[in-house]
Amino acid sequence: MPSTTSKPALTETSYGKSRIRLVQLTRRGDRHELRDLTVAVAFEGDYDTSYTDGDNRDVLPTDTMKNTVYALAARERAGEPEAFGMLLGRHFISRNPKLARVNVDLIDHGWSHVADGAREHGQAFVRRGPEVRTARIVTSHEGVTAEAGITDLIIMKTSRSAFADFPRDEFTTLPETHDRLLATALTATWTYRDTDVEFGPVFRTVRSTLLDAFARHDSLSVQHTLYAMGEVVLDSIDVVERITLEMPNRHHLPVDLTRFGLENRNEIFVATEEPHGLIKATLTRPSLIRPTLPR
Amino acid sequence: MPSTTSKPALTETSYGKSRIRLVQLTRRGDRHELRDLTVAVAFEGDYDTSYTDGDNRDVLPTDTMKNTVYALAARERAGEPEAFGMLLGRHFISRNPKLARVNVDLIDHGWSHVADGAREHGQAFVRRGPEVRTARIVTSHEGVTAEAGITDLIIMKTSRSAFADFPRDEFTTLPETHDRLLATALTATWTYRDTDVEFGPVFRTVRSTLLDAFARHDSLSVQHTLYAMGEVVLDSIDVVERITLEMPNRHHLPVDLTRFGLENRNEIFVATEEPHGLIKATLTRPSLIRPTLPR
Amino acid sequence: MPSTTSKPALTETSYGKSRIRLVQLTRRGDRHELRDLTVAVAFEGDYDTSYTDGDNRDVLPTDTMKNTVYALAARERAGEPEAFGMLLGRHFISRNPKLARVNVDLIDHGWSHVADGAREHGQAFVRRGPEVRTARIVTSHEGVTAEAGITDLIIMKTSRSAFADFPRDEFTTLPETHDRLLATALTATWTYRDTDVEFGPVFRTVRSTLLDAFARHDSLSVQHTLYAMGEVVLDSIDVVERITLEMPNRHHLPVDLTRFGLENRNEIFVATEEPHGLIKATLTRPSLIRPTLPR
Amino acid sequence: MPSTTSKPALTETSYGKSRIRLVQLTRRGDRHELRDLTVAVAFEGDYDTSYTDGDNRDVLPTDTMKNTVYALAARERAGEPEAFGMLLGRHFISRNPKLARVNVDLIDHGWSHVADGAREHGQAFVRRGPEVRTARIVTSHEGVTAEAGITDLIIMKTSRSAFADFPRDEFTTLPETHDRLLATALTATWTYRDTDVEFGPVFRTVRSTLLDAFARHDSLSVQHTLYAMGEVVLDSIDVVERITLEMPNRHHLPVDLTRFGLENRNEIFVATEEPHGLIKATLTRPSLIRPTLPR
Repeated sequence: MPSTTSKPALTETSYGKSRIRLVQLTRRGDRHELRDLTVAVAFEGDYDTSYTDGDNRDVLPTDTMKNTVYALAARERAGEPEAFGMLLGRHFISRNPKLARVNVDLIDHGWSHVADGAREHGQAFVRRGPEVRTARIVTSHEGVTAEAGITDLIIMKTSRSAFADFPRDEFTTLPETHDRLLATALTATWTYRDTDVEFGPVFRTVRSTLLDAFARHDSLSVQHTLYAMGEVVLDSIDVVERITLEMPNRHHLPVDLTRFGLENRNEIFVATEEPHGLIKATLTRPSLIRPTLPR
Repeated sequence: MPSTTSKPALTETSYGKSRIRLVQLTRRGDRHELRDLTVAVAFEGDYDTSYTDGDNRDVLPTDTMKNTVYALAARERAGEPEAFGMLLGRHFISRNPKLARVNVDLIDHGWSHVADGAREHGQAFVRRGPEVRTARIVTSHEGVTAEAGITDLIIMKTSRSAFADFPRDEFTTLPETHDRLLATALTATWTYRDTDVEFGPVFRTVRSTLLDAFARHDSLSVQHTLYAMGEVVLDSIDVVERITLEMPNRHHLPVDLTRFGLENRNEIFVATEEPHGLIKATLTRPSLIRPTLPR
Repeated sequence: MPSTTSKPALTETSYGKSRIRLVQLTRRGDRHELRDLTVAVAFEGDYDTSYTDGDNRDVLPTDTMKNTVYALAARERAGEPEAFGMLLGRHFISRNPKLARVNVDLIDHGWSHVADGAREHGQAFVRRGPEVRTARIVTSHEGVTAEAGITDLIIMKTSRSAFADFPRDEFTTLPETHDRLLATALTATWTYRDTDVEFGPVFRTVRSTLLDAFARHDSLSVQHTLYAMGEVVLDSIDVVERITLEMPNRHHLPVDLTRFGLENRNEIFVATEEPHGLIKATLTRPSLIRPTLPR
Repeated sequence: MPSTTSKPALTETSYGKSRIRLVQLTRRGDRHELRDLTVAVAFEGDYDTSYTDGDNRDVLPTDTMKNTVYALAARERAGEPEAFGMLLGRHFISRNPKLARVNVDLIDHGWSHVADGAREHGQAFVRRGPEVRTARIVTSHEGVTAEAGITDLIIMKTSRSAFADFPRDEFTTLPETHDRLLATALTATWTYRDTDVEFGPVFRTVRSTLLDAFARHDSLSVQHTLYAMGEVVLDSIDVVERITLEMPNRHHLPVDLTRFGLENRNEIFVATEEPHGLIKATLTRPSLIRPTLPR
């Protein structure tokens, strides 16, 4: 196929619109609800001539993608981010003949009602964070894959975290420790078995399961705790098939106070962001492993 | 024009250390507490010869300022940020003869214990945000001023917010509105009457008072709501003498859905960050106003 | 304590529009020019009833401010940022009876033409940075003040930088140094004597003067170099009356390589951003100093 | 293999250290040179028991990875980022028996000497940007792959950019245009045929080739220009086997001035960052395409 005169081959092509900001308000009498989303749409398909020849005849403008997000939210209401992503995916795949696969990524910015004594103000909100809820919906002619996730869940444990028994070489200066602070900004994404899921309640269950497993674990390393967190999710939430965890190790360094004639009883730390460790892994439910599963 | 011999005059000089990151852990049996601070120290005083001649004989190194933050936290424990700032201010002012005034700025990053069913894990934490608590302590030989504050409290009200009856000129295109979303990232700072204040509880009261006033107000403009929020704080919390509020107006623009044959019943909005309105004011308790109060 | 009838006093009020993004293209035959500005407009004046009573009758909407930026750029062309700021200032002050003072802040994002061999492509541009040029124009009924500046000019000198002969106390661990890296992200702002200035050429002269002074100085401290930089500007550029310099000290820490059996001949450094020193000062031309100059 | 009692399977595991900041100074008489790198090291290999059992016996600490970066820079000097990445890769792969693959990512922050009239100050520097040079070196027992790249090269063309002849549906409102601004923050990464490359000069040639192709192209869309840029690189620089380009479309929207009785002759634009288009593709030299090339 290739010859000296032929053109470069195209792979990994994708085009779309990112950072579409949608706030949808639902009024239920005196109580309002907010859905605050950042949406990205990316098309993959048979669009090579748009690259090679500037042929736009099948290139749905990314501006139209953006308009579609607002129009479908208005027409059908954006509910859970996964459901809204599926709605968008179905819409695009059914109308664009050259489209093979559409990825819809959603960030759900959380808001809580402002407290009114023991009750709540129905029409005033305060933003939760820094964590955000995420979803990724991939729609092709073969079907739909739904992933959910959480980003920037900043957590710390102040006991039962060790790191020892590691190999040493001439550049190793790290002391062994059996009582360190373990802090991370967790990013987790998980894949659902199918799309027949109560997305909101399951999200909240995964979140609390991750937090609880992190809190309870007797950690021998970040890797060890990461695995334990993923394992509990797979063990206890059967609609989750696979989970990917990404845990930067935000080091908290004990301050050497002996220079000042003081003792640091493991209480005074410098919080650092740079450099940081970075640990990642994907855990897959064992019944799903096939001999030919591609890495 | 300037005489050849005279040198430029120095004003507004200040030097110090910023972004000192301190995490202090307190163990009370099985329950741990975290104090997570970012501290900045700035010295003002008779340091002109360090600028003009490089005379460092009275210039306490900013590295020593940083060490002092850790050492004093270890020796005396960093409690409420205002109290820790006062401790630092007293230390520096008493030891540096050329120092006229030291400003200590503190950011208190909030952490909550991870939930354990209806109880809490004593030794695992999740970061609250995006808001942070702030404090500024100014210490001079004449005395101490304590300010407290909150930054990035992101709030929205979805009813009772209007903007109308404004002047129009040939460049005005804004329609009047009697039902808009009002969203802001509030920065508030307030000055205490003296330093005999329960800093933690009062901070929480100011915060909830601001939120409640924001929620309840029948807003005719951002200015109008800003004033109402500050006024309630001054009326109800007598240790607060003065409050400054800064409220960017994060516009939420209704999407014109008529182009798609749909109606927008004030439910679908584009959230924007740029451009934004910006409204600021300081409210001072009336009994403190003197005819000669400097602007 | 406060009387029940009197309301809080308002001070430091300001309202306006920030982050107005304007790109203006000028076509001169085959050669195009770009002006890429971020503009902020802030009104100060007799607007208290808008805060206290929600009276908007004199409150020019910030949306109109934004529209005015685009309209005046179209009608009169945005040239140098200072000139455009003055045009905006005059417009607003002449039409808004309650307006006492309008501040226009401008950021000028620099673009260069893309090289075409030894020449330039007339219609393609590449962004310069990270530094930006700034201007602040304050217009009142009494007159106009023009400030110019530069932000995020990141500079480093690798010789002739010392820090020694400083006082030591029980918390001092910093060694004296006579050969350190000195790096900063300079923010400079300067005030012009009047508005009869060639804003573009003078800006470029101040910038190159600051760089040259930084490079040439035998630095005994950041303070010392800051002063030297400002002094050369005042000595050599007579339309500059006053200059404020802000220099964070971005520490570059020599790595202790002896732990690895290696020597660090002052060549291997960790670049840090946190914590950092922070040095500020304003230098004023001596002929302008009056006995009563307020601090 | 899987059974109901077996544990989750691990895939996509990786651990390492990110954001290692290294500045290396080389003194050649009066002229100094700076190398300013941010390095990330990631290990992939047979480390599953560190996750499942907390077995750290083969887990080289990420702190040691960091120390190694400084030690090897001191011992052998960090030259071009690709060469330094290869040095690190060889070091790690030869010493860690469980290591299958090590990824070294490098960001090279550019500094220029400060001008001294027509010459240069040898020991003072100013940071270039916002663009940075990047490299990724993947080392396994099978060999080494070297990628180079550039991130945040912000470019704009003000002529010869169209977008028309696209499909329309009920949500399409975008007008066709034959004269728009085309602006992007380019990220490009390319793979070298082997490691026998003059990394510095070739990087500069790829950079200038991309800029020139962007400037010259008669653009029918972002896709079209992206392809043209990649094609020229592959056609003219034979050591590049493959190139990936990522081009967000930073929309510049013409302002409707007719509302103000003015005409916009395509000169006044609002620069926006959100939402933005996002176009990506990989171009591969045709002689390298195999029928079985995996997507």
